[in-house]
Amino acid sequence: MIEVQPGKRAIQIEAFEALRPLVLAEPGCIQYELFSDDEDENKFILVEKWASQEALAAHGKTAHMVAAVARNPSFRAKPASVIRMSPVGR
Amino acid sequence: MIEVQPGKRAIQIEAFEALRPLVLAEPGCIQYELFSDDEDENKFILVEKWASQEALAAHGKTAHMVAAVARNPSFRAKPASVIRMSPVGR
Repeated sequence: MIEVQPGKRAIQIEAFEALRPLVLAEPGCIQYELFSDDEDENKFILVEKWASQEALAAHGKTAHMVAAVARNPSFRAKPASVIRMSPVGR
Repeated sequence: MIEVQPGKRAIQIEAFEALRPLVLAEPGCIQYELFSDDEDENKFILVEKWASQEALAAHGKTAHMVAAVARNPSFRAKPASVIRMSPVGR
């Protein structure tokens, strides 16, 4: 769950668009999609799907993610809240 | 966001597994997936993706959804919280 500072929506979308091809190219990346909350333009949900815990861990150490994490506070209202999930049911 | 009563996790998963093929067969249904919160076995997230607002509205009126909604309180801790989202960025 992501919340941006008022007026910084476009910067969040641009940052995601620049990052997305780099992340999708990483080994084990299955899904990397940004959604906007229909009821609040400053709220987003980033849905990521990874083939393994290892792939996700490696993702966090890439140069582009280290740079993105350093830049996020300049347009985010607060740190993102992360919910780690696993698929259930057929 | 879904929360079940303690001990009712299996009932939620079974209810989803029975519903899923019926929902995936509905016109405009793109995704219908249940995820479990890795840090709380009683919490789930149901990710749905629909081709249009109309398809989603029709979904809510199907016999299987009317029956599911009527049954949910028997194993849910509280009503599900729904976040409607739209994809952003390329």
